[in-house]
Formats: sequence, structure tokens, C-alpha cells
Amino acid sequence: MTGNVAGPKPSLRAQAIAPFHVMEILARARELERQGRSIIHMEIGEPDFETPEPVLAAARRALGERSMHYTPALGLPELRQAIAAHYRLRYGVAIDWRRIIVTSGSSGALLLALGVLVDPGARVLLADPGYPANRHFVRVLNGEPVGIAVDASSHYQLSPGTIAAHWDANTVATLIASPSNPTGTLISHEALQAIHREVAARGGTLLVDEIYHGLTYGTEPRTALEIAEDIFVINSFSKYFGMTGWRIGWLVAPPGMVDAIERMAQNVYLAVSTPAQYAALAAFGPDNLAILEQRRSVLRERRDYLVEALRRLDFDVPVVPEGAFYVYANCARLTGDSFDLGKRLLEEAGVAVTPGVDFGSHRAREHVRFAYTTRVERLREAVVRMERFLAARRFG
Amino acid sequence: MTGNVAGPKPSLRAQAIAPFHVMEILARARELERQGRSIIHMEIGEPDFETPEPVLAAARRALGERSMHYTPALGLPELRQAIAAHYRLRYGVAIDWRRIIVTSGSSGALLLALGVLVDPGARVLLADPGYPANRHFVRVLNGEPVGIAVDASSHYQLSPGTIAAHWDANTVATLIASPSNPTGTLISHEALQAIHREVAARGGTLLVDEIYHGLTYGTEPRTALEIAEDIFVINSFSKYFGMTGWRIGWLVAPPGMVDAIERMAQNVYLAVSTPAQYAALAAFGPDNLAILEQRRSVLRERRDYLVEALRRLDFDVPVVPEGAFYVYANCARLTGDSFDLGKRLLEEAGVAVTPGVDFGSHRAREHVRFAYTTRVERLREAVVRMERFLAARRFG
Repeated sequence: MTGNVAGPKPSLRAQAIAPFHVMEILARARELERQGRSIIHMEIGEPDFETPEPVLAAARRALGERSMHYTPALGLPELRQAIAAHYRLRYGVAIDWRRIIVTSGSSGALLLALGVLVDPGARVLLADPGYPANRHFVRVLNGEPVGIAVDASSHYQLSPGTIAAHWDANTVATLIASPSNPTGTLISHEALQAIHREVAARGGTLLVDEIYHGLTYGTEPRTALEIAEDIFVINSFSKYFGMTGWRIGWLVAPPGMVDAIERMAQNVYLAVSTPAQYAALAAFGPDNLAILEQRRSVLRERRDYLVEALRRLDFDVPVVPEGAFYVYANCARLTGDSFDLGKRLLEEAGVAVTPGVDFGSHRAREHVRFAYTTRVERLREAVVRMERFLAARRFG
Repeated sequence: MTGNVAGPKPSLRAQAIAPFHVMEILARARELERQGRSIIHMEIGEPDFETPEPVLAAARRALGERSMHYTPALGLPELRQAIAAHYRLRYGVAIDWRRIIVTSGSSGALLLALGVLVDPGARVLLADPGYPANRHFVRVLNGEPVGIAVDASSHYQLSPGTIAAHWDANTVATLIASPSNPTGTLISHEALQAIHREVAARGGTLLVDEIYHGLTYGTEPRTALEIAEDIFVINSFSKYFGMTGWRIGWLVAPPGMVDAIERMAQNVYLAVSTPAQYAALAAFGPDNLAILEQRRSVLRERRDYLVEALRRLDFDVPVVPEGAFYVYANCARLTGDSFDLGKRLLEEAGVAVTPGVDFGSHRAREHVRFAYTTRVERLREAVVRMERFLAARRFG
């Protein structure tokens, strides 16, 4: 539908938002499937697990018993309190529940947090590679996202030094994602403390994306909320809690920012979907957590298999990803163009992956992202297909 | 929680968003109720009706049968097609379903539509009085909302003349709401056509908010989509369809803007809550529509009672509101300060209303908004209370 000559012209903002290449890959994969081809989906950032039954049951119950009217803009008080209890139980950290804002996914949390921080021209420092929507949110608000090249030596995370080197008078904030998408790597609590000191000393604000917390393997990260009250923490029911389609997450904000956030929330979305809020109340129940921990062990098994197999295929995975469900693999030993590799893997081997260019520009053509969001038997089949494809030397 | 000295400072954007006074009134009303006082709520822009049972049943079914994973960013294709069928049946208008975007309420629709139109400094013309979130959305995107004073002589709607008088080189769009909040008044199809010609001749874009369509009494408005393909139309499942808390609505966009909107949607919210989308599929069923039409007749009865009663109390209602569930009443014959009147009606008469200042600045101190979102017996009781309050001459 592009290229229509009549009618309105898109804003500069709209023009600045690049498409996700993964969406084209997904569309092409679906087309090949309609033609009868078998495609293994390793491009999708959404686990194959369904919403756990205790959450579905809570939603069904609420639909019979509760009003589906608007909730308060900041969310159901009992859900905000349940999230505070989660911090107490899981992290041993006491958070005033009035600092917790229920949001429409982590997207809603980012919109509110950046909305109260970023004026036109304000710069926000982010890791490159990183989740593309983060930089696009800054653009939507007419700020300037500044991608800072990171590599395996820092576990693909920013450091006080890289932040200091890129900070200027227009910089207002930096965003750290741990575990990171696309790399699955974590930042240490000590490194995060040092970053907070660096950012705070410059009068800036630190935002920490913890949406993959719970999906870590062999390590239990601490929350940035331990460090200081002036940090924004973004989290979600999508990933660990298996509620992707419900669109519900949360933001923990500095106390002095809650009023401004409430006013913005009242205007930009009124409230989060009521059924999703009642469903999420069941997310912290022991029966549900047992299911989630079982899923976590399945994901760990997939991770262990895939990292080893990719290395055997001569992909370079210099840091074992400790969280999320991604492997960010360097394919420079196989090709000079990961974008082309991705296309050919799909067309010739029936394996869909996400090209590095979706995550930034730093050495993006050397990387592809594999998501282990499908059963391990399918991952094995994908590896067999890629092995055959690479051995046939059709690629070079 | 304001006044915290440490920590981040709110953006200029956040500072520019005024609080809704109605929220303070609602909070005070709840406080009085906790103290045992009886309060009649005429401040809330949400009907007392619950989500109709066919929609609840569809949601419960979907929770057992459907995946609650992400849907496509533009919405479930079958829901977009069902909305297109609604335009065919209800309005006799054929709309390509690919122009229809499912959004998180009309809020999501406004964010996307203004997001692809408004760059920093761009001006958007709006009626004053009008729904405050509309102007705040323009501010969130760093544009400049321009409130144009309207009064009863134009049914509180803009005209080609007022638009021409306020248009300048930085103006990109104008937004018309019909029926309007807070006035409940409609614009005629012919007037809207003339406005479209005026706006299009200046290279601008017309947005039309039709979220109260279906809730009109004695008149069936045509949709702006009849007029031209370059108009953005915003609609919602909240009001007529009784799904406020679900947060689901839609946007019909010019064909050439759909790609830009899709990219923005993929970044700013990924997709609308999946259970809400499956629930909304049942909204157009004949069993559901029968319930909604019954509700419409109840609202009409309330409207007829309230307009008459308010006039008897010496409020001025110069134009009978033909839609929505609001009466925007001039109280200049009773007081010089509607804000104070609202406070005293709450404290002394136990009747909660919304002050005019929430909707703009044009003669705002002469108006209050009454919402007839409560049973007619309660409306009668409210009128008795107000009559007693006014007769006691405690007010003047």
C-alpha cells in the first residue's frame, strides 16, 4: 500500500522508524509453508508455550465475577501489591507498591518512562546491538537514540566508560537491558551499580529493562531496584509468565515521578485491559510458578543444545547467553553477509532466523539471532538442515 | 508524591499535561462514600452497563480454544474483516479491511494516527470545549494543539470558516468529534464535507472521532468514511459496544498510511490484547446488537429526562445533545464559577459532576458536564438534591 500519491504524508517520525526485517522473514516463511514447505521458526521472539492454565482459569473466573469496567490508570491496587510481594519474595527487596504502575506490556512501560524523561532533542544511550523498539520509542518522542557499540568483551553490555565517552549536555538517560535481546547476556550487579553512579553523577536517569528476569539459566540476577530509588525498572508478564498476547507488564518508577506518569497514563491509554489484570493476579500463585519453573528448565535444555550445536557448525558464540531465549551468533567465518545468509537459510534450508541488522548497525552483517522458542527436536532438525546447507557449499 | 527533590525531573511534555479535575472529584467522592455519605455519580464517562454476556461468553470460549500469543500488529484479520462488514451493514459503506487497524482503545488509535502526522511544532486544530486527551496526545508528540472556541450556534462543532481563520503554515490536521464529548452534539454530514474540502485544499488531514456512534438518539449519523479515503476515522468498542475496560478500538486510515502505521504499531505496542480481540468478534452478533439497542433506548430515556430537568433547574442547555451520554450545561444563571459549583454540589448535595475546565478554556467556568451513566431513579434523586441545594440559596 506504499507509494500512494494522494493523501497525507507520513511525519518525519514515521519515516524514521525502520521496518523489522524479521516481519518480512516471517511473512515469507508463512508463504513458503502455504506452498507446502516445512519451515523451522527460530526467528520469533515468543516461546511456543501457551499461557499457563492457572492464569487462564483466573481470567475465566473474573469474566463471570468481576466488572470489566476501567481500572484506575495505574492499575488494580491488588495487582500492584502482588507485584510488590513478588519483589519481596523473589528478590528480598521491599518496594512501595505505589511506585508500581501496571502497563500495557513493557511497551507501555517504555512509553510512559521515556515520555516523562525525553523532550525533543534529548539523547538516550543504548547498547548496539539491542532491541530495536527501544530506540524507536525514543524517536517517537522526538529524542535521539544513541547506539553504543558493544561486543563480547563486555557481555554486550554498556560500561561506565562507554557511557562517559558518549555523554553530552543533551543526554538525559541510558537504558540497560539485562538479560539482553538479542544477546541473552546479563550485566553484573556491580557493573550496574557503577553505571548508576556514573549516570547519577551526570544528573541523568538510568532505566533497566528486566523483562527476561526469571528466564535465566544457572544464575539469579538481582534487581536494579536494590541499587537506588531513582532508577526506572521495566518488567513484563510476557516472557517468564508466558502472557505475551495479553499485553501486560509493569514499570517501577522513582517516587517523585509517579504523579507525572499517572497524568500521562490517564491521557495516553486510560488503563490496561481489565481481563489481563485479573488474569495476571494468578501469575504469582505457587501452582503457576511450578509450571513456569518447569518451562525454564526446558528452555535451559534448548539453550545448552543450541549453543553447542551452533559452535560445531562454526558459528562463533563467544559468550554463553545466560538468559532470555536467544543466541546471537557471529557468522563471519561462514559469510560476509548475515542478511543474505538469513535469506538463503530460509529459502534453501527451511530455517527462519533474524538478521543482525534488526538490532543495530555495529557488526550487524556478521550476526544472526537464533530464538530457541521451539521444541528441541525441531532445533535438532534445524541444525541438521543448516549442516547440510553449509556442507553443500552452495553458500560462500 | 510530588515535590520529591532528588531523582529525575519530568520532561516538559509531562509538565504540560494537566491533571483531569474529574479524577480529584472522583477520589473525593469515594472518600465521602467511605465516610458513609451517599454520592450520585454523574462525573464518570463510563456507563453503568456491564460488558454484554455474548461478548463475555466469546472471551471465555476463546480462553479455552485459542492461542493467547501475539496477534499481528494490525489485529486479527477476522476482526478487521468483521469491522469492515459492520461498515457495510450499518452504513452501507464498503471499506477495504486492510485499511482497518485494531487498536488499544481509541487512545491507541489517536496515538498511531497523530504519530504518523504530527512532527514537533505541528499544529492540530480542535474544538474547545473538547475531550482533553485529544490535545494531550498532540503534546505528547511535541505538536501544538490549537483549541478553537465553539458554542451552541454551531452545535459546539468547528466550521470551515473557523478552521480557515486558524490555519497557518504549521497546521497539519484538524480533529472533529461527532458526537462530541463533553457536549453530545453532532456535526451534519454536509458540514463535515465542507470541512474536509477546506482542510484538503490546504494540504491538511482530517481526523474524525466517531467513538460515540451507535449512541445517538433519534438520528443515525453517516460515517466520515463516505466522504473521502484520505480521512482518518477513530472508533472504539468501549462506548456503544460496552467494552470500556477491555481497551479495544480501531482506526481506519488512508491506504497510503497503513504501512507507516504498521511500523509504528509494531514498535509502540506490538499488538492489542488477544483476549479482547476474540471477545470483540462477538460484538457484532445479532444477539449482542439486540442488547445494545435496548441499552441505547435506556440512555435515550435518561437523556430526555435529564435535559428537561436541568432546564427546569435553570441550567441552560441550548442544544439538545443527540448522542453520547453527556449534557454540557451552562450554569451562568446560577453562578459565576462552575468549578466552585461542582465542589459544592459534591460536598453539600452529594452529586458529582465534571467542571468545564476539564474540557478547555472557552467559557469553561460557565459550564459543567453531567454524565447520564447511572439509572434514571438516581438521576431523579440527583435532581431533587440539586433543587434543594439551589433553593437553600446557600449558593450564589
